[in-house]
Amino acid sequence: MKHFTSVHDVDDMNLLAASALQYKQSPFMDKSLGLHKRVGLLFMNPSMRTRISTQIAASNLGMEAIVFNVDKDGWKLELEDGAVMDGSTVEHLKDAAPVLGMYFDILCVRTFPGLTDRDEDYSEVLISKLKEYTSVPVVSLESSTLHPLQSFADMLTIKETFQETRRPKIVLTWAPHIKPIPQCVANSFAQWMNKWDDVDLVITHPEGYELATDYSKGAVIEYDRAKAFEGADYIYVKNWSSYGSYGQVLCTDNKWMPTLEDLKTTNNARLMHCLPLRRNVELSDEVLDSPYSIVTRQAGNRVWAAQAVLADILKTL
Amino acid sequence: MKHFTSVHDVDDMNLLAASALQYKQSPFMDKSLGLHKRVGLLFMNPSMRTRISTQIAASNLGMEAIVFNVDKDGWKLELEDGAVMDGSTVEHLKDAAPVLGMYFDILCVRTFPGLTDRDEDYSEVLISKLKEYTSVPVVSLESSTLHPLQSFADMLTIKETFQETRRPKIVLTWAPHIKPIPQCVANSFAQWMNKWDDVDLVITHPEGYELATDYSKGAVIEYDRAKAFEGADYIYVKNWSSYGSYGQVLCTDNKWMPTLEDLKTTNNARLMHCLPLRRNVELSDEVLDSPYSIVTRQAGNRVWAAQAVLADILKTL
Amino acid sequence: MKHFTSVHDVDDMNLLAASALQYKQSPFMDKSLGLHKRVGLLFMNPSMRTRISTQIAASNLGMEAIVFNVDKDGWKLELEDGAVMDGSTVEHLKDAAPVLGMYFDILCVRTFPGLTDRDEDYSEVLISKLKEYTSVPVVSLESSTLHPLQSFADMLTIKETFQETRRPKIVLTWAPHIKPIPQCVANSFAQWMNKWDDVDLVITHPEGYELATDYSKGAVIEYDRAKAFEGADYIYVKNWSSYGSYGQVLCTDNKWMPTLEDLKTTNNARLMHCLPLRRNVELSDEVLDSPYSIVTRQAGNRVWAAQAVLADILKTL
Repeated sequence: MKHFTSVHDVDDMNLLAASALQYKQSPFMDKSLGLHKRVGLLFMNPSMRTRISTQIAASNLGMEAIVFNVDKDGWKLELEDGAVMDGSTVEHLKDAAPVLGMYFDILCVRTFPGLTDRDEDYSEVLISKLKEYTSVPVVSLESSTLHPLQSFADMLTIKETFQETRRPKIVLTWAPHIKPIPQCVANSFAQWMNKWDDVDLVITHPEGYELATDYSKGAVIEYDRAKAFEGADYIYVKNWSSYGSYGQVLCTDNKWMPTLEDLKTTNNARLMHCLPLRRNVELSDEVLDSPYSIVTRQAGNRVWAAQAVLADILKTL
Repeated sequence: MKHFTSVHDVDDMNLLAASALQYKQSPFMDKSLGLHKRVGLLFMNPSMRTRISTQIAASNLGMEAIVFNVDKDGWKLELEDGAVMDGSTVEHLKDAAPVLGMYFDILCVRTFPGLTDRDEDYSEVLISKLKEYTSVPVVSLESSTLHPLQSFADMLTIKETFQETRRPKIVLTWAPHIKPIPQCVANSFAQWMNKWDDVDLVITHPEGYELATDYSKGAVIEYDRAKAFEGADYIYVKNWSSYGSYGQVLCTDNKWMPTLEDLKTTNNARLMHCLPLRRNVELSDEVLDSPYSIVTRQAGNRVWAAQAVLADILKTL
Repeated sequence: MKHFTSVHDVDDMNLLAASALQYKQSPFMDKSLGLHKRVGLLFMNPSMRTRISTQIAASNLGMEAIVFNVDKDGWKLELEDGAVMDGSTVEHLKDAAPVLGMYFDILCVRTFPGLTDRDEDYSEVLISKLKEYTSVPVVSLESSTLHPLQSFADMLTIKETFQETRRPKIVLTWAPHIKPIPQCVANSFAQWMNKWDDVDLVITHPEGYELATDYSKGAVIEYDRAKAFEGADYIYVKNWSSYGSYGQVLCTDNKWMPTLEDLKTTNNARLMHCLPLRRNVELSDEVLDSPYSIVTRQAGNRVWAAQAVLADILKTL
């Protein structure tokens, strides 16, 4: 593939997953694939797992990764065409992007949505302009609306833990948070699971938290969480702010925080979360510290997801 | 050479340029030159191009580069001799420098002027004390008064784009900005062009923006910008604050922002700027997005400039 | 050894010191020991020497070091069990640690004490929970109460500068500072010197600055500094806040800042300090710039201390 900014960039998700799981077995099998290649990791927003896992993935492939914290390292980029830059931005993406494209063979970028202007957020201006202004491959490290490296790692985690031949029932459940959170992880997980032929997705949330249908279509929406949980093989817990009442927190009811009791009707479901999470707000200690939780394995798989993606792109260079 | 802090450290600028252009052809030809050598990149001020290009240059030579953001990583250095350090500085350069000299084979440092005390800024206290307190080579990544790695990249850019045998006419033109900006890039560019035998330099700016004669001597100063632009082969656009009325902004007239119309009297001039720049303040979209602009190529050449400088120093170690 | 968080983790300090001094002679002799191994350097607090020396040590062993500035990179970790995380912390160490343990082969961490709650600081909650929540080795880059990599470098510095067969007299002397400083360096130095059979330690400080006896036991406490200095071979200067009146500054008397005059009764003592230091507050220019001072050599030895520790741990993986 050329870019990796959503599941639609992936030709064959099962093949890509197989490659990732091979890297998990033999991290250094393609150590020379990235020789003399460089990947730039641009962060508009903080990151721990994404940054470290991508650095490790690059290094496993023999590539050099250089991190640039755009805001923190003192650079505020302008994105608007025609802007008279007499304010706080010091450089236009239109000028920075082509230069970065000369320095790097692959550009990875993380940004978050503002959560105030839905059209702006959902136009994914940074990712799309980065593609426009530079000729090198662009990889999303989480964008305004999606987090494909996370979802791919989620898919890997399900693939390697589900040994039966039937289709697993996967439930994405909204959980409470103290502040408005992007829809990225939920959108992206729904998008990946819906495209994946081998699984069934149910999404459960309070009314008003419907995801954009672009991502949720194909999934069953079930407002009754108890019903959604019945017989579930995987419970993916995640908060997001409202898409309809854009960026708003409509519910703070902590009954939406799953308990061990709630998990009893599941099929011994494995519990997932992308991390970071606020303990005893989104998820309780009792659930996280129980054998249900596979969140550490899930975060560990971030390395192999990133490695398979970078390797696939490297092969096209 | 031992240090690289101005054009005067360079024995033969044409030879150094030839080396840089060779690296542009074969980035990894000296991959083992820097084996087991380390370069420390110390930033008192933010940097994107300079940091990334120097990291890449070091890596191309097989060296390890370690970045330390002095202020941001929590270290405020004292520079004044005899200071009673009961204020905000936590360490004296006199103690930090010799230690850094033990850790690194080459020290690169970036600092900006305060723009309030001209004598202090022009004494280049950080660079000169770093040379004094440590025995390793010191490379300027931009100092209070100069930016030699930028000017060397500028020279490379002119060298590789000018194919005729005659001397090109190069115009350095002041442009507006919203706040006081150091004279470094302008000083340094003037210094390099004036030392370079093969080119003619004209400097144009509003009255009051005269550069220190140490740097401008040898160039024609032309207050009439239209006249300066006539027949120019290169137009280098840059803002700087006043040297005479030190650090002040004396002019905000946006007629000094070059337009396509202004470029018509030039000899199809190539337009240069060191970046970052504020669009539609220093330079308009119409000019930047036109074929006149070679700013991306110019920024790309930062890698080869840094690589030739580091290689030259490595050969002396 | 498995972990390195105090002198008690070291089997044979003389053997470890011998290994460090060998690395000083041949930095790259074990270049392949760390092949395909990764060390994570987590900083809750700023660091210059510790960060750079550990990065270099890792690289000398062929390991990759990845730095993560926990607070600065936007991550505030929760340490308290059972916390309802509806405040400023975004992730619990209980969730972050196992993930970091999947990403890295060794975890190094730096934290500082709050200096308000002695029991909390002296329980070393971060280090102990990191050991509990992850299975990889943990190395202290300075903790709430100790700084073992510094003390090990101090030991190396004494070992290589003292050529006589008798036991050197080493004096740890309190010096003034403008604000409350942790007891870590003093605690740790006392702990190492007291465990080291070959030296005699005297600690001198104003009344009220007694260190916890866990660390000072074995040393002579001498309130009369002049008497302590007599015949000393090493004077280790360091400020710390009170342990008894926890975290308080009880004395600001600058007579405790050693002068050249004060050193005259010593046995031509070598003067040590871990750096950074505030000149003319903790130590005067006249002393620091005199031949008595070996602070640069001491800081240089941080590399070899870290390299010996990492190598020793790598051999157990």
